[in-house]
Amino acid sequence: MLRALQSPLAVSLGDPAGIGPEVIAKCWDNRDRLELPPFVAIGDPRSVAAVWDGPIELVDDPRQADSAFDYGLPLIQLKVPQADVPGHPSVAGAHTSLDSLEIAVGLARSGSAAAVVTGPVSKEQLYAIGFQHPGQTEFVAERCGVAPGNVVMMLAGPTLRTVPVTTHLPLSEVPSHLSIALIESRGRAALRGLQRNFGIAEPRLAVSGLNPHAGEGGELGREELELIAPAIAALAAEGWRVSGPHPADTMFHARARANYDAALCMYHDQALIPIKALHFEDAVNVTLGLPIIRTAPDHGTAFDIAGQDRADPRPMAAALRMAAENAVQRADAA
Amino acid sequence: MLRALQSPLAVSLGDPAGIGPEVIAKCWDNRDRLELPPFVAIGDPRSVAAVWDGPIELVDDPRQADSAFDYGLPLIQLKVPQADVPGHPSVAGAHTSLDSLEIAVGLARSGSAAAVVTGPVSKEQLYAIGFQHPGQTEFVAERCGVAPGNVVMMLAGPTLRTVPVTTHLPLSEVPSHLSIALIESRGRAALRGLQRNFGIAEPRLAVSGLNPHAGEGGELGREELELIAPAIAALAAEGWRVSGPHPADTMFHARARANYDAALCMYHDQALIPIKALHFEDAVNVTLGLPIIRTAPDHGTAFDIAGQDRADPRPMAAALRMAAENAVQRADAA
Repeated sequence: MLRALQSPLAVSLGDPAGIGPEVIAKCWDNRDRLELPPFVAIGDPRSVAAVWDGPIELVDDPRQADSAFDYGLPLIQLKVPQADVPGHPSVAGAHTSLDSLEIAVGLARSGSAAAVVTGPVSKEQLYAIGFQHPGQTEFVAERCGVAPGNVVMMLAGPTLRTVPVTTHLPLSEVPSHLSIALIESRGRAALRGLQRNFGIAEPRLAVSGLNPHAGEGGELGREELELIAPAIAALAAEGWRVSGPHPADTMFHARARANYDAALCMYHDQALIPIKALHFEDAVNVTLGLPIIRTAPDHGTAFDIAGQDRADPRPMAAALRMAAENAVQRADAA
Repeated sequence: MLRALQSPLAVSLGDPAGIGPEVIAKCWDNRDRLELPPFVAIGDPRSVAAVWDGPIELVDDPRQADSAFDYGLPLIQLKVPQADVPGHPSVAGAHTSLDSLEIAVGLARSGSAAAVVTGPVSKEQLYAIGFQHPGQTEFVAERCGVAPGNVVMMLAGPTLRTVPVTTHLPLSEVPSHLSIALIESRGRAALRGLQRNFGIAEPRLAVSGLNPHAGEGGELGREELELIAPAIAALAAEGWRVSGPHPADTMFHARARANYDAALCMYHDQALIPIKALHFEDAVNVTLGLPIIRTAPDHGTAFDIAGQDRADPRPMAAALRMAAENAVQRADAA
């Protein structure tokens, strides 16, 4: 199925001082065992050479990547004044990571690449060069002409997909940020994403409660009654298959997971704890609601282990495989 | 090891209309396969006979249970005016469940039973007969002369133990309930429990953050800096091995779990989501801080499936095994 892609995946290396270059190189090394589709990296080849002895195939155009892929890691070279050192993030590296992301997204938008897979960046470094977005996701959304509120983050592993309604908020601010409209729109985006990216014709969404025991009928909080249940009812009235609010602690065991295609969770850790407990090595961050496919491994730059040959390529491999699967799904639907 | 118990476990049947009688009877049926120690049930034998055809051995004293255990389910009979119907909770059943709990605790306190394992009760029914405690745990604490604030709930499975700092609170009230003193005292109770109940001489406690990414240095909430880190420092100053605050989403994968003996979590679902995602069939609720051993299966009365032979006895079996192991551990330490 993976060879059915009409064009390669575009992969941004992320911060050149982080583990992005290493995990992408290791993915190419293990492309057969990890069952990876052809991809082309975008970045400074020196950041790859600093951590890896394998062959790099410089290309100008993704169309060259498919044939180059058998001989080396296909890479579109960014002109960077000076090489970065693994483990030592810099302002120059932040510029490189942003350029890499910009080009990767452009290739996917133009159709030259089948999808974008983004390597990990340092938000701290990006903020230092004037980056205005909360993260790569919002940047990609803007470049695709989609309002940030219309994209939604999904964490997807082999037996569980979760979508958080709220993300990077202090826990104390979560209840006041929830609204019927927000839960409804996130739920709708999740359901449409299950159709468009995953090819599930009639997706089933399980919606969590916010409070212990999903509020126990109002005894332990009223958000279930006042916000979550009405949002579920509104989605159901549109014909979607939506259940809940479910107590969050009994949603994630194997038998419960068999009853839905994605879980809509009220806050960051409610969505991230189960996915990482169950699928730490192969959870993928998928951005839903974009005109392009974008996935990312669910880990950071890990500057502390960069350049030590210790980074695990499995999350990046999972992101590459899922990008290819989603792209094939979209192409089939089109 | 289990036969090393000097006396049997005392098991309260819980609500007679719930699945307690069924799972306890099934445990006796499968006592060899499930590697269960001798136990004696306390309740109305008719609630067992209503859901099970096996032999019941009525006993007056736990000392008779060990020999009776080979022939039937040892049971200390409660005089109950009329039999309850599975799936139909009643006020009379609430009285029965409370009497059963009271006797089981008394047997453990007197040393006639090695530990107490409690079947599931209906809080709604108990409240209807004037029960004043939030749950069985607080009732047991009071009967043992321990203030409710000094006992702590641990959820224990084969590869993970978690202890929530706060439990049945609306999520919006969690931040304001946290304090350095509360986190410290729950942490200390967890550490002592790991020593006393689990025989771990130098226990390691991993403490979670409250906010996404453990607050990211104050960017996503300040409870980590102002409450959790000081509590960790205070425990460390006493010589305990305590780490954190850790981002909650990266604490529960296999490699992370290998670094601690228990995770101290800030709220109900933070502790319950990972334990039930990983160990739904064999997570045990252990009450730490009591002079006696008390465990319980981590499920409710399940009135909706009572009397249908559908209840899974594995959680009760896990609670029985853990009670026996904890009791042996305590006896060895004494």
